[in-house]
Amino acid sequence: MVPPMSDFALDPRLDRDSTLLMKLGLCQLRLMQDSRWPWVLLVPQRNGISELFDMTPLDQTMLTFETALAAKALKQATGCEKINVGALGNQVRQFHLHIIARSTGDAAWPGPVWGHGEATPWDGDARAQFTKRLLEAL
Amino acid sequence: MVPPMSDFALDPRLDRDSTLLMKLGLCQLRLMQDSRWPWVLLVPQRNGISELFDMTPLDQTMLTFETALAAKALKQATGCEKINVGALGNQVRQFHLHIIARSTGDAAWPGPVWGHGEATPWDGDARAQFTKRLLEAL
Repeated sequence: MVPPMSDFALDPRLDRDSTLLMKLGLCQLRLMQDSRWPWVLLVPQRNGISELFDMTPLDQTMLTFETALAAKALKQATGCEKINVGALGNQVRQFHLHIIARSTGDAAWPGPVWGHGEATPWDGDARAQFTKRLLEAL
Repeated sequence: MVPPMSDFALDPRLDRDSTLLMKLGLCQLRLMQDSRWPWVLLVPQRNGISELFDMTPLDQTMLTFETALAAKALKQATGCEKINVGALGNQVRQFHLHIIARSTGDAAWPGPVWGHGEATPWDGDARAQFTKRLLEAL
């Protein structure tokens, strides 16, 4: 059996750079502290995972379904042109998957968002409105 | 039923930028024409797919298992520090997943590889050697 999720410890940098929106079956769904793009993270609530293949097959499948769910909701909530999905982890080794809404003319289009300039904090209203739309779409 | 895979048409740009290594159950495993990083693509052999959630649940699961398989083989064949996985598709809409072997000090470390400088072609020997190691690890 896998350990209970209450033992899960979130990496401090992920904790600083994002805020919890809700817990799905396996993952925490978190909002990045950067309003330049609608950008969420999925973090499987398992310790000691840095690569996809460190996860059990069941967890891999759960992650895939939660990714599709979150990506579809993000697309629906934003009307974006393309969803970008990526798991890099070069700086933070705890496994985390980025899901980002992209459109022509956005701050990094058509390049990747990672490493592009400085994060722009959300203003409270825009953030509340986006979060509401996203959670409704889920 | 899904259509037979023989109907699958690969995007011309993916065809130009990568070469076929082998066909897995769902995906073509392709080597990128860029020797700066050991870098492969998985392309599900289905037409009309641009997002993960356009795929059937079974295909999503197949993709996940093939991703884990290819990522583990790439890690084993290269001894790299971290695997990067990403599906962007801002420029080429046919769904394709990048799997890249990354290590401290590589050409873009710790940033993403996409959009970084110009591709460096493989020399024939290095390419043959890498391909052999990767396919053995699979």
